[in-house]
Amino acid sequence: MRDHPEADSLIATAHALAEAARAATLRHFRSAALSVQDKGQGGFDPVTVADREAEAAMRAVLAERRPRDGILGEEMDDVAGETGLTWVLDPIDGTRGFMSGTPTWGVLIAVSDAQGPLYGVIDQPHIGERFEGGLGRTELTGPGGARALCTRPPRPLDRAILFSTYPEVGSPAESAAFAALSDRVQLTRYGLDCYAYALVALGQVDLVVEAGLHPYDIHAPIAVIQAAGGIVTDWRGGPAHGGGRVIAAANPEVHAAALDILSAAAG
Amino acid sequence: MRDHPEADSLIATAHALAEAARAATLRHFRSAALSVQDKGQGGFDPVTVADREAEAAMRAVLAERRPRDGILGEEMDDVAGETGLTWVLDPIDGTRGFMSGTPTWGVLIAVSDAQGPLYGVIDQPHIGERFEGGLGRTELTGPGGARALCTRPPRPLDRAILFSTYPEVGSPAESAAFAALSDRVQLTRYGLDCYAYALVALGQVDLVVEAGLHPYDIHAPIAVIQAAGGIVTDWRGGPAHGGGRVIAAANPEVHAAALDILSAAAG
Repeated sequence: MRDHPEADSLIATAHALAEAARAATLRHFRSAALSVQDKGQGGFDPVTVADREAEAAMRAVLAERRPRDGILGEEMDDVAGETGLTWVLDPIDGTRGFMSGTPTWGVLIAVSDAQGPLYGVIDQPHIGERFEGGLGRTELTGPGGARALCTRPPRPLDRAILFSTYPEVGSPAESAAFAALSDRVQLTRYGLDCYAYALVALGQVDLVVEAGLHPYDIHAPIAVIQAAGGIVTDWRGGPAHGGGRVIAAANPEVHAAALDILSAAAG
Repeated sequence: MRDHPEADSLIATAHALAEAARAATLRHFRSAALSVQDKGQGGFDPVTVADREAEAAMRAVLAERRPRDGILGEEMDDVAGETGLTWVLDPIDGTRGFMSGTPTWGVLIAVSDAQGPLYGVIDQPHIGERFEGGLGRTELTGPGGARALCTRPPRPLDRAILFSTYPEVGSPAESAAFAALSDRVQLTRYGLDCYAYALVALGQVDLVVEAGLHPYDIHAPIAVIQAAGGIVTDWRGGPAHGGGRVIAAANPEVHAAALDILSAAAG
């Protein structure tokens, strides 16, 4: 586990960010007037008013509490910091789920240095669930109370549960690699966005595999899953915090088994 | 809207059933000890202890409150009634989601006569959301309070949102028909089980299309969606409460547009 002298301040700030984003997102979630813009290039990529308002609300919190740290957010310009720490923010991970009214989008918040995330939060405001991990913490708070996060123990691939957001995982080669893995597991499910990573940390799911991710999609899941005992890498076993092809696994054994298949198939 | 002289008793009973199933399912949801049996034939079809306990709890409520009505449940033998009314129960719709820890499985409860469902409930115990419709009611109660259910107004197919539980929708011919429809809509999402039908009633989603359903999968969604202004039929426009191929639509216009494509492609 990585530590930091300002751990308490960082954790308190992350929770303040989650509260700010929660208020901004719930104001719009399932509202009749939710207006969805189209980002344009690359097909259907809606950005809602909620997305922008939630990031603005989080940046206001950072301006007050941590003005010298950097910011990398989905919706607005990067801010270079002076402390070596960067807040990595995705105000609504799963905008398609958000605009469809599903309860499995999330607010992603991480605080990271050059080596990757130190601490992260996956927050689901509608359900009222907050998954957090790093800097000595690993916890879910939600409707059932609070519990420690802990990934599940190793099991053979043919008894494993795999998640991805879409059946079409990235490029044709990436999609074929995913299919090769999907053929080997017991159950493949789709459609949860960041919530699938939370389920790995919670010990419910063995694997999440995706491609084409942005850094802000994966920093918080890395922190939460690693703190719970899991492992997150790219499809070659290297660091995942740069985005791209990502595999999140409950334990090193299932990670190795899945990585063998993905790396052979994806080239 | 269809009515019934015992409407108040039926609605109160349905809520008592939902409470009984809620307690039974949440006792096991995300528990470390959740034991999953395999039903055997037809691949991976888990039945959990929670599933059986929840149906037993509901049948105990019916034995007390409505002993003369019939029962059609997923897990136990049918009970022939004497009143012309049958309770149609699916204690956990979405057992794969349940065993993966997702919050989008549900308890389905309907009370039906020979013409189909009179009233239904889609209950999501973990979130604490209950969607109900029929016998003069149409309501969601949940974390955001209570609100009326109302489906969305017509829009062109190329701006519609389509849901199905799996990318592989039934037989190859059914899957091809679904793909033909999926190609025409703005967004297709997977993985929500009964929760997708609730989102149609809530006005968030335009279409749900599935095949191979059992009657207990669809009675409650029919009641909830029809009460909210939507329409649920089979892929030829006939009654859907027998199960099989089902299309649930927010309004008659999007229903007709989708039905054209499905019926042409499925033959």
